[in-house]
Formats: sequence, structure tokens, C-alpha cells
Amino acid sequence: MSSDLQRIIAFIVELDKLKAVLRKTKPVGLDRYENIAEHSWQVCLLAQLLSEYANTPLDIVRVTELLLVHDIPEIDVGDQIVYQTKDKSRADAERQAAARIFGLLPQHQAGWLMSRWQEYEDRKTSEAAFAHAIDRLMPVLHNINNNGQSWRENRVSVEKIRAVNAVIGEVCPAVWELVQDSLEQLSKEGLFDYGVGST
Amino acid sequence: MSSDLQRIIAFIVELDKLKAVLRKTKPVGLDRYENIAEHSWQVCLLAQLLSEYANTPLDIVRVTELLLVHDIPEIDVGDQIVYQTKDKSRADAERQAAARIFGLLPQHQAGWLMSRWQEYEDRKTSEAAFAHAIDRLMPVLHNINNNGQSWRENRVSVEKIRAVNAVIGEVCPAVWELVQDSLEQLSKEGLFDYGVGST
Repeated sequence: MSSDLQRIIAFIVELDKLKAVLRKTKPVGLDRYENIAEHSWQVCLLAQLLSEYANTPLDIVRVTELLLVHDIPEIDVGDQIVYQTKDKSRADAERQAAARIFGLLPQHQAGWLMSRWQEYEDRKTSEAAFAHAIDRLMPVLHNINNNGQSWRENRVSVEKIRAVNAVIGEVCPAVWELVQDSLEQLSKEGLFDYGVGST
Repeated sequence: MSSDLQRIIAFIVELDKLKAVLRKTKPVGLDRYENIAEHSWQVCLLAQLLSEYANTPLDIVRVTELLLVHDIPEIDVGDQIVYQTKDKSRADAERQAAARIFGLLPQHQAGWLMSRWQEYEDRKTSEAAFAHAIDRLMPVLHNINNNGQSWRENRVSVEKIRAVNAVIGEVCPAVWELVQDSLEQLSKEGLFDYGVGST
């Protein structure tokens, strides 16, 4: 039977698999897709830097915990672009994955991380809403600085970009205003003049 | 002149460069070197999970902040294996890099992240000592689970591995005990029977 410490080590080694799960966006300046592990680090920092722009008081410690674990189930189920609707079977698969992976840990730590992941999914707390908005914002910033790479590749309309990312405005109005200005400018420059796909 | 928000965005996009800075270790199961961004995420989680094994009380929030920023200057100066001594010119270059990169941020945030990075470097607080030990521990765990990949590639002797990583034992004795058992076992199995290099 494994000791608690051995279980923690088994969990942290399992997390290496998240470094092989690719997202739809490429880091600015790199010709490859980013993975979930590096994305998770970047959104933690973005959240810390933007917390002073949130329109409600936030427990930033909790936000960071949510963002550190929010995508871990993608080890089993892979990434899905935010412009696709999450159906019930996807949500169920994510929950099963979370139970398997967090279940590698000692019971009290498994429960702790599972509750953070569930809080992120439920989006009922201010912290979860903010973490969710930051998670949406990061690929928008990539696209604004990357000639719309993942928007073009997935033929996402500017209307859909505005609709799906409006949650940013609900928690960080000043940031959303800046994003809207960029979208307006990129639209004028013809970035979105591609045929719109089914995504 | 850029607004504070624009400066935060410039900084977070600059961080994408850390996804291209490679370490000496490969994630378990992957045939590529890991980058600093994904490493930074993983050590944040490892620190949270092991904080209850620390032999002094810790402000885990601060530990997380230290680990989120600890390697950011490597955007400019690249990675250096821990088995090499850091000389003064390397330390100076890291400080200049920190000043440049954190200097992209609004002044109060630049000061905040610079002070965290400096605290990590100085290793005078319990939080910095713990963060430093976690940073050492992660590649040890990789090597234990990866047939000693970076130790073999850099021909690091088991004596040097024990000496350089002894800091883990200073803050997390139970973890260090487990690591020593693994080193003993791997040593018996002949893992370290390579010629020892100059690293």
C-alpha cells in the first residue's frame, strides 16, 4: 500500500501528461500549439495581475487554486475550443477524469482539489467567474497578437467571439473595453473576412 | 504612452517566450525537453501538496507567488542545470533580465514581482527555502521515474545528486528520506554506472 507521500508523487508525475495535451492556440512567436500545462501557468499570472480590475472583491488565492487545477481532467478527455458547446457526455467524461486523477492523491488532498475543480466548473462564486473570464481572455490576447491564428484556423466569426467572451466584460469591464477596441480595429483591417465555419 | 492595462497585456504576451526556453529534463513519457512555463505550473502544485510536510510554518500563497515568477528571467538568459554553479556574471545577467521583463508592467506590479523574484534568489525566508527545495525536487522525481534521463545525459554522479539536493532534506525531511531510498535503489541497479562528466 502506498504512503501518502508516494501518492502525491504518483499524482505529480501523472500531471506530466498534461504537457502533451494541446490547445488550439499557438504562443505568440512560436510555430506550435500550446499545451495545457504552460497555459495553466500563464493564466495564474494573468489573474494575479488583473485582479485589481475585477468589479467584485476576490480571494485571489482561491482564484489561483482554481486555475492551477481547472484543466487537469483534460489529461483524459483532451482540449475543446471554447467556441464549441460543452454537452452532457463531455461534462460527464470530465467529471470521471477528475475523479480518477485527483483520486491518485491522499483522500483529503483529493477532496480539496476536486472541490476546487468543481467550483470552477459550477461558476457560481466570484472567484470561479473571474478565473473563467481569465481563461477566456488569454486566447483572445494570443489571437489579437497572433493575427487571429486560432480564430482563422477554426473560422470563428467576430460575432461569436464577442458573444462567447462577453463574460470577460461581466467581471473586468475595463479589460473587455480594450478587447472590444482591438476586435473593432482587426475587423476594419479585414481579419474576419474568412468564410465562417461550423464551430 | 501605454495604459497600465496595455502594459499588463504586453507583459503577459512577453511571457509566451518562456514556453520556448527548454530545461534539461524530459517530462515522464514524453520524448522532448520540458519548458520553463510548464515546469513553473507543476512546481506550484507540488508545493501546495507538500506544504504540510514542511518542517516550518509556511505562507503557501507567497511560496506560490515565488514559484510563478522564479524562472521568468530565463526568457533572456536561458536555463542552467542545477549541477552547475551560478557565477556572478550569470547572476548579474538574471537580475538585468528580471528588471527588463518585470519593467514592462505598471510600476507597482513590477516592484511586486521583482521583490518576489529577489526573495526567491536570496533564499533567506522559509518560503524561499521551501520553493527552492520544491524546484530541486521536481527534476529529481522526473529522473527517478525516467531512468535518470537528465542525470545520464549530463553524467551527474550520485554523490553530486545527493549533495546538490540535500536542501530538500532541510525543509522536507520525509520527502528527502523517500528520495534517498530511491537513489539507493537506483544505485544498486547500476543507474549511475556511467562515466562522470565535468558538470
